[in-house]
Amino acid sequence: MIAAPVPLPHKFLQSALTREGAFLTEEQFLAWFNEKSRNESYSVRQIPFSKIKEWFFDKTTGNLAHASGKFFSVHGISVKTNYPALLSWEQPIISQPEIGILGIITKTFDGIPHFLMQAKMEPGNINLVQLSPTLQATKSNFTQVHKGKLPHYYEFFEGRPQGKIIVDQLQSEQGARYLNKRNRNIIIAIEDVIEVYENFCWLTLGQMKQLLRYDNVINMDSRTVLSGIQFVDQNRAGDGSRGKTAPSIELFGKSLNEFQHSLYLSLIDRENNLHRFEDIISWFTRLKSKCEIRVTPIPLNKVQRWHKNDYEIYHESQHYFSIIAVEVTTNDREVPSWTQPLLKHFSCGIVGFLVAPINGVLHFLVEARMTPGYIDLIEMGPTVSCSELEYRIQSETAPLFTEFFYHADEKNIRFSAILSEEGGRFYHYQNKYMIVETDSPDRLTIPDGYIWMTYGQMLDFIKHTNYINIEARTLIACLSFL
Amino acid sequence: MIAAPVPLPHKFLQSALTREGAFLTEEQFLAWFNEKSRNESYSVRQIPFSKIKEWFFDKTTGNLAHASGKFFSVHGISVKTNYPALLSWEQPIISQPEIGILGIITKTFDGIPHFLMQAKMEPGNINLVQLSPTLQATKSNFTQVHKGKLPHYYEFFEGRPQGKIIVDQLQSEQGARYLNKRNRNIIIAIEDVIEVYENFCWLTLGQMKQLLRYDNVINMDSRTVLSGIQFVDQNRAGDGSRGKTAPSIELFGKSLNEFQHSLYLSLIDRENNLHRFEDIISWFTRLKSKCEIRVTPIPLNKVQRWHKNDYEIYHESQHYFSIIAVEVTTNDREVPSWTQPLLKHFSCGIVGFLVAPINGVLHFLVEARMTPGYIDLIEMGPTVSCSELEYRIQSETAPLFTEFFYHADEKNIRFSAILSEEGGRFYHYQNKYMIVETDSPDRLTIPDGYIWMTYGQMLDFIKHTNYINIEARTLIACLSFL
Repeated sequence: MIAAPVPLPHKFLQSALTREGAFLTEEQFLAWFNEKSRNESYSVRQIPFSKIKEWFFDKTTGNLAHASGKFFSVHGISVKTNYPALLSWEQPIISQPEIGILGIITKTFDGIPHFLMQAKMEPGNINLVQLSPTLQATKSNFTQVHKGKLPHYYEFFEGRPQGKIIVDQLQSEQGARYLNKRNRNIIIAIEDVIEVYENFCWLTLGQMKQLLRYDNVINMDSRTVLSGIQFVDQNRAGDGSRGKTAPSIELFGKSLNEFQHSLYLSLIDRENNLHRFEDIISWFTRLKSKCEIRVTPIPLNKVQRWHKNDYEIYHESQHYFSIIAVEVTTNDREVPSWTQPLLKHFSCGIVGFLVAPINGVLHFLVEARMTPGYIDLIEMGPTVSCSELEYRIQSETAPLFTEFFYHADEKNIRFSAILSEEGGRFYHYQNKYMIVETDSPDRLTIPDGYIWMTYGQMLDFIKHTNYINIEARTLIACLSFL
Repeated sequence: MIAAPVPLPHKFLQSALTREGAFLTEEQFLAWFNEKSRNESYSVRQIPFSKIKEWFFDKTTGNLAHASGKFFSVHGISVKTNYPALLSWEQPIISQPEIGILGIITKTFDGIPHFLMQAKMEPGNINLVQLSPTLQATKSNFTQVHKGKLPHYYEFFEGRPQGKIIVDQLQSEQGARYLNKRNRNIIIAIEDVIEVYENFCWLTLGQMKQLLRYDNVINMDSRTVLSGIQFVDQNRAGDGSRGKTAPSIELFGKSLNEFQHSLYLSLIDRENNLHRFEDIISWFTRLKSKCEIRVTPIPLNKVQRWHKNDYEIYHESQHYFSIIAVEVTTNDREVPSWTQPLLKHFSCGIVGFLVAPINGVLHFLVEARMTPGYIDLIEMGPTVSCSELEYRIQSETAPLFTEFFYHADEKNIRFSAILSEEGGRFYHYQNKYMIVETDSPDRLTIPDGYIWMTYGQMLDFIKHTNYINIEARTLIACLSFL
């Protein structure tokens, strides 16, 4: 029998292995980025709700909404579920039914795909400016509710996108904070010359993989879009056996270390996956069949255990999050200044994948995660996602597998960085993102809501909507062979 | 460059090409099936709502529900949408939030996979008995709300299914009649000896493909489960170029005619698809981004233009459908007799795929279809699905491409049969299912809501939930190389 040919590593894989861009070195980028951060005259300050303009609390329901009926609103929900256990609670949630665009333009320079990124201020970012996609716009932005000008490069993504489609998928955001929110994640490849506006720059994927190791440089929107890039041509996928039998491997002149080699096999090897595609689908289907969730909208002023004062709407435990109002002043935005609500988080959460080599191939321990905001009941998330870790540990309700991350041995940490969630909605919401390896996966008891999957399997699911959650997509974006 | 190997035709493909089963010939099956139909003493008769037992109309809302709160209920919805055009309407709809099981056991005899099928009565079937999956059970069935005995073979599908998983996916049903209904479609392959109970028999896939040409033999539940069978190993998919260059092809000793050859290439050829996977995903994503649907539950007695008398709830035009009550008497069911509501359809609808060879490969014209009951806005449906064709033609609102089916030239008809929809909910609801070929696809103007796809591409999407709608799945089940 003839072994299937090893798939041609995709040119995006080459970009992911390229640390020197055609335009900027990492040092030059950091200098440029720091200058952008310093130069812009932004100011964000918390204000009392009484000072918020164009936003109103409904007199009857207490729901918070924009006068135009656009952007987003905050109301309450009552949740009853049997997954992962019998639970019921009430909470405020952001309702943003419109589908926005998160779009990145890619173009080849010196044979290597580069990505057009933007240094962009968002009021909730702890450092204000982070690196965002080429276009990051809600429907209210591009239908000009603000009456500002259309964002740069909008025309590339409007209607049928211009250029060759690399990625174009609806992807969910935090289902514990948003009700049914998804954004259109797009990457288009162009060949024409385009103008590079101020605050924009071209970077290779490898450069961004390096920048993801810095705290709070690459924003959430960039991470979710970049996570969708495929490195193996699906019509040419082989069994990767040649890669498997080799003791080590060189990719585009870069020697992989043991972990990187195992990660590469996890991308291309289709014959040493612990679970077949059909078995993963069956697992997911069975959990969805079992899972019952009832989410009922309720008035914001009727949400149990949540209270409102002049400055915030908060949980009586002072945990989870609160809703605040801010005033933003800037000279670099579609409109010169505005006020808006934000969801404020009190502590840095932890999000981590436990990984292990199984059959010589790196596997990721995926959790089937339920949140009230997902469109289709459950999505696949990292091993641990917890926004209130300290509190959960104190109250002895820390999620399973937490111990691998909370006191991780340095030698097992494959990735660790503090990254921000969407600064247009969240105020100082950060998570510590980690990838931690264990060499003894056999000793673990894997409960029904968890499953081992390879990198390649996760990338198969990411092609479709309602599978890989935003936290898992961030960690996938952070995977690197550098 | 070495061409990728032609994929090994899967053993299910061999089953699909096998007309002689290990147990029954087609004639013997038909004799057995007719005997089953004759022997059972069933009676179904319409009764006034006042005679319905254990079902109640809520005094305030007029909603129809079972006393246990289980099974299903009927209420109203108000729908506002901008897709495919600005539309709003109100209608009754079936709410059945529980996920049932449609499961088929497959086992190899004489080297060929056979499928364990059941001759089963459903009150709404025009001919009462049709061929159903091994197990066809709502959650209310298997949690024994009827207090009857558990259905045969239930133990194979309970919890983690026994045997090797072939298919295990949630698939939607008629989104114009059900709100968010999906069933778990499962096929498991076993090797052990199992008892074949009365009313069950083993058939090859080829035998069922032949039986699908008969009106009303293979029920909807069988069709949807069988449609999920994959014929190409996804990890071994090549470019099919060897098949493509051959002027004709033999599959397991069967010579394919020109249409069958084109259909086979449509299954295996990955290089001559009109649209890349990424472009189809992008098209679907763009339509979902554009599509706004608002579905609001309303009381059944407040649904505009719908009225209730002693015997039915009906639309004032006397079109669409009505809700009736029936009494069922039988000696062959978990419970001896019962009454229940059914949705009655007045006329036979039409459901058809327009197909055409493009680049030598058969393509199917797929419509992105919105119905209020789909979980994720739109699904991929056949070119035409219309339950009220005569009426729509008279009122000059017939859907696009109808003319290809309504007065199809005999020489272009590749498939045509009248098949029933789910007889447990629908009373005498039949559609004429057609596949019609055009040899001049270039002359067609394809609007934005339609796209050409291959058989292989549809089978890629069918692996996932919320893509291929129930009408398309029936036609996919009908595709045959015999």
